[in-house]
Amino acid sequence: MQHVEHIGIAVKSLAFSNDLFTKLLGVAPYKQEGVESEGVMTSFFQTGQTKIELLEATNPDSPIAKFIEKKGEGIHHIAFEVADIISEMARLKSEGFTLLNETPKPGADNKLVCFLHPKGTNSVLIELCQGM
Amino acid sequence: MQHVEHIGIAVKSLAFSNDLFTKLLGVAPYKQEGVESEGVMTSFFQTGQTKIELLEATNPDSPIAKFIEKKGEGIHHIAFEVADIISEMARLKSEGFTLLNETPKPGADNKLVCFLHPKGTNSVLIELCQGM
Repeated sequence: MQHVEHIGIAVKSLAFSNDLFTKLLGVAPYKQEGVESEGVMTSFFQTGQTKIELLEATNPDSPIAKFIEKKGEGIHHIAFEVADIISEMARLKSEGFTLLNETPKPGADNKLVCFLHPKGTNSVLIELCQGM
Repeated sequence: MQHVEHIGIAVKSLAFSNDLFTKLLGVAPYKQEGVESEGVMTSFFQTGQTKIELLEATNPDSPIAKFIEKKGEGIHHIAFEVADIISEMARLKSEGFTLLNETPKPGADNKLVCFLHPKGTNSVLIELCQGM
């Protein structure tokens, strides 16, 4: 794990929360991007080494829609940048962590990603990501 | 807001979670520190510019005990480093955010801190912190 690449926050309305986080962080989002396979539209703010990623569901089956239905808006996941996602996935598996996808998959912001099951990480959804 | 200084994670047992996060992050905690006024024992891991702060309640009235009782273990707050906490508190107040403390208070890791009410921040508990 190299650093916290981004923190994902589930929101009901990107339009509303883009404005809110622009006021909070004192900086506007630098891009907005959809990830169709995950059913989300995302918005990114740069703050030092770590991005804030707002996530709005684009359909009711999206993991973000289900998260908000169950827990409300709030922090959804922490993503760590890794140098080599394949070897980091193998290392974590050998340490007893459960991978939610066995091979890296494309995520937002031109990354290969893998999620760890939060049951094994104090209920924190952890994402590994590697720039493509 | 300069960067994400740390991410606070509420856990039931520091002993258990120190071991878990050492395996996850590939690095051991660099310090453990109590904050008596908040009823917490904390443990810090360095990962790039951002620290992971594990928080265990030391008494049943601790905000962390109440958080875990209500929501279970998981991400508790995001802390942003600020250059001048007094002026940042004034700026955020003028933008309509609600401060949970009107003057900065001492936090863990030799910081002056202020929390924002999560009702105004998409249910994300935000901490401002400034090194002392």
